[in-house]
Amino acid sequence: MNYDKIYATRTSRIKASAIRELLKLAANPNLISLGGGLPSPDSFPLNLVTELTEKILTKYGSTALQYDTTEGFMPLRKGLVDYLQNYGIRAGLENIYISSGSQGFLDQIGKLLISPGDYVAVEGPTYLAALQAFNAYEAEYAQIETDDEGLIPESMEEIINNYPIKFIYTVPTFQNPTGKTVGLKRREQIAEIILKYDMLLVEDDPYGALRYKGETLPTIQSMAPDNVVYASTFSKIFAPGLRVGFFVAPEKFARWMVLVKQGVDLNTSTYTQAMAAEYLLGGYIPAQVNKIINIYKPKLVTMLDALAYYFPEGYKWSKPDGGMFLWVEGPKGIDMEEVYKKSIERGVGFVPGKFFFPNPEDGIETMRLNFTNVSEEEIKSAVKILAEVAKEQLEILV
Amino acid sequence: MNYDKIYATRTSRIKASAIRELLKLAANPNLISLGGGLPSPDSFPLNLVTELTEKILTKYGSTALQYDTTEGFMPLRKGLVDYLQNYGIRAGLENIYISSGSQGFLDQIGKLLISPGDYVAVEGPTYLAALQAFNAYEAEYAQIETDDEGLIPESMEEIINNYPIKFIYTVPTFQNPTGKTVGLKRREQIAEIILKYDMLLVEDDPYGALRYKGETLPTIQSMAPDNVVYASTFSKIFAPGLRVGFFVAPEKFARWMVLVKQGVDLNTSTYTQAMAAEYLLGGYIPAQVNKIINIYKPKLVTMLDALAYYFPEGYKWSKPDGGMFLWVEGPKGIDMEEVYKKSIERGVGFVPGKFFFPNPEDGIETMRLNFTNVSEEEIKSAVKILAEVAKEQLEILV
Repeated sequence: MNYDKIYATRTSRIKASAIRELLKLAANPNLISLGGGLPSPDSFPLNLVTELTEKILTKYGSTALQYDTTEGFMPLRKGLVDYLQNYGIRAGLENIYISSGSQGFLDQIGKLLISPGDYVAVEGPTYLAALQAFNAYEAEYAQIETDDEGLIPESMEEIINNYPIKFIYTVPTFQNPTGKTVGLKRREQIAEIILKYDMLLVEDDPYGALRYKGETLPTIQSMAPDNVVYASTFSKIFAPGLRVGFFVAPEKFARWMVLVKQGVDLNTSTYTQAMAAEYLLGGYIPAQVNKIINIYKPKLVTMLDALAYYFPEGYKWSKPDGGMFLWVEGPKGIDMEEVYKKSIERGVGFVPGKFFFPNPEDGIETMRLNFTNVSEEEIKSAVKILAEVAKEQLEILV
Repeated sequence: MNYDKIYATRTSRIKASAIRELLKLAANPNLISLGGGLPSPDSFPLNLVTELTEKILTKYGSTALQYDTTEGFMPLRKGLVDYLQNYGIRAGLENIYISSGSQGFLDQIGKLLISPGDYVAVEGPTYLAALQAFNAYEAEYAQIETDDEGLIPESMEEIINNYPIKFIYTVPTFQNPTGKTVGLKRREQIAEIILKYDMLLVEDDPYGALRYKGETLPTIQSMAPDNVVYASTFSKIFAPGLRVGFFVAPEKFARWMVLVKQGVDLNTSTYTQAMAAEYLLGGYIPAQVNKIINIYKPKLVTMLDALAYYFPEGYKWSKPDGGMFLWVEGPKGIDMEEVYKKSIERGVGFVPGKFFFPNPEDGIETMRLNFTNVSEEEIKSAVKILAEVAKEQLEILV
């Protein structure tokens, strides 16, 4: 039959994207990919699975296999109350809810808040999958400018004054795609501004626990709990295959989030929530996070060293204190999509940075590099090849 | 802050529903509830979990904890190709995709097809959670009439002729809420009609495997594979807590479903998909379904016997060949919401049938009874009490 005639109008915003087409070029299995966003499989606590399974069977039995409330598995929500206090999150049980991964949260918030044509303020660059989630609700974007310290509060205030913003979306800690972190003073400024304008801010924090240096910063949520929805996930501190995320929100707002989720998936897998609960309650997180940091930190150091050693003048890059990504900027005039096509031919993949900007003319000269799912050897040879292509592009430019 | 000002227009359709308010009355833990739709925990293969876990760790290792493709876990999709042939489903790998439970499928299909104000043709009564999923996309409904054999094809054709229908949604086998099944001749008529009008039909089949008597009927999908999206789930043949469903669709259409899902949850839990895969590939399903049937069938028989024994004249009910529900109709003038309030006071819960109709004036005199999550003793005493209240209401009426 002719299906085209029945698709909803919103599908014009869900279309197969240019980035997907581009990433198909990277299908070569011998490619060293700095392009993905996957945690290293070495970082998963595979050795705990049998133990956690036994605990689930003993403690929850068939409850772990039954439907659950949309709000989330109660032992997990209760465990998160204490856990989140360590991160300075002000939240009681009535503020903590489970989502089907961070993506499930992003879909929920988009569905609850975005009518077609509504504006969302996002950093440029921002998290691509957030744009994908919001696109389906036909969002428009107002782009907040960023610098080496991430989101610029003054730019955010200007955006609020010039667009009818529904909410602000930001990843302030070890951002995807840049690895940048918004400092304490800026966090305080951001909190002040959202309070001044009575705006809602979504603080997406999947990477916060993966800090390789420096001190943990207070969340923006802790500075303006009534105006911030804070979201995080077990994907980076346990495993993404569980699809268990969580968010902290004012109770009144959260009740709507739950109503929205009910129609989307009834509840997040009870079984994987029970796994996350036993992982959390068993006190495994600190040692596991430590293990993950010990895997990722040397990879980051290797990448930074290789960039400094191989890359030509004119290029600069972020120096993240944590997370999974690093951001390279070439001089104006460099087209990273060209670099991409050439480096793919030579066996190295990455993501051209322009795809992370809502403004289509921005970020042409940028690239995102992931360092978590490659070995240190691979990082060195990949960066060397990237540097060679980058140098060639520079020469074409001159 | 004032959140009300930022909610999307679609939230007017997601509001806390009357049924939820009503079901709160049933919070008494001593209540015998015929109101829910839960499988019996006795029916879950809890004894297999350790074995399945070992297989997952051996066969898939950390892959089971990693992100997966949006399409679904490949070993599960491959296993479903063979499995579905037993149900007469014509499908190759390119037609079979995983969803986050049936609800995830319903959300996907709503998101892909429904623009605000678009019409969906549904049976009256129909599955409540489908309405919830579609409501969020601001659907309007055209109600197809039903009789003892479920959906009436002539009524469906009339609806197609009189409304600008986007698609037809139906649960033709052991329907929720009625337990009714559309017979072979009607299935053929339905297939003919959708082919004639080049319409898309969604065949939702969560209960098909739970047949207690009679012969398995061919799916509508097998009669018009290009015009039918067929959906089912592991919730009733394994466990709902896994949140693993699947659907069969024409490849071109399915590609859009996958794009939609990507923004909603990236992928269904890899881990629970791996559990479902090992459950399927291990050949556990036939014995387990047999076990489930042996648990549910006597409960259905007990309920039918109790209804025949206790219920006053003027009431009639469906005689399902399978599934989890049974449907009672009182004489015109009976208000089952009144029966509900009185029976709750006497310790028995059910769902008044009117909530399953898109037309708000329909089904006042009906009720849905679930028989899977209560013991035979409980069924007998619950039906006895219901019958007493039903008789009292009849006397008030006269």
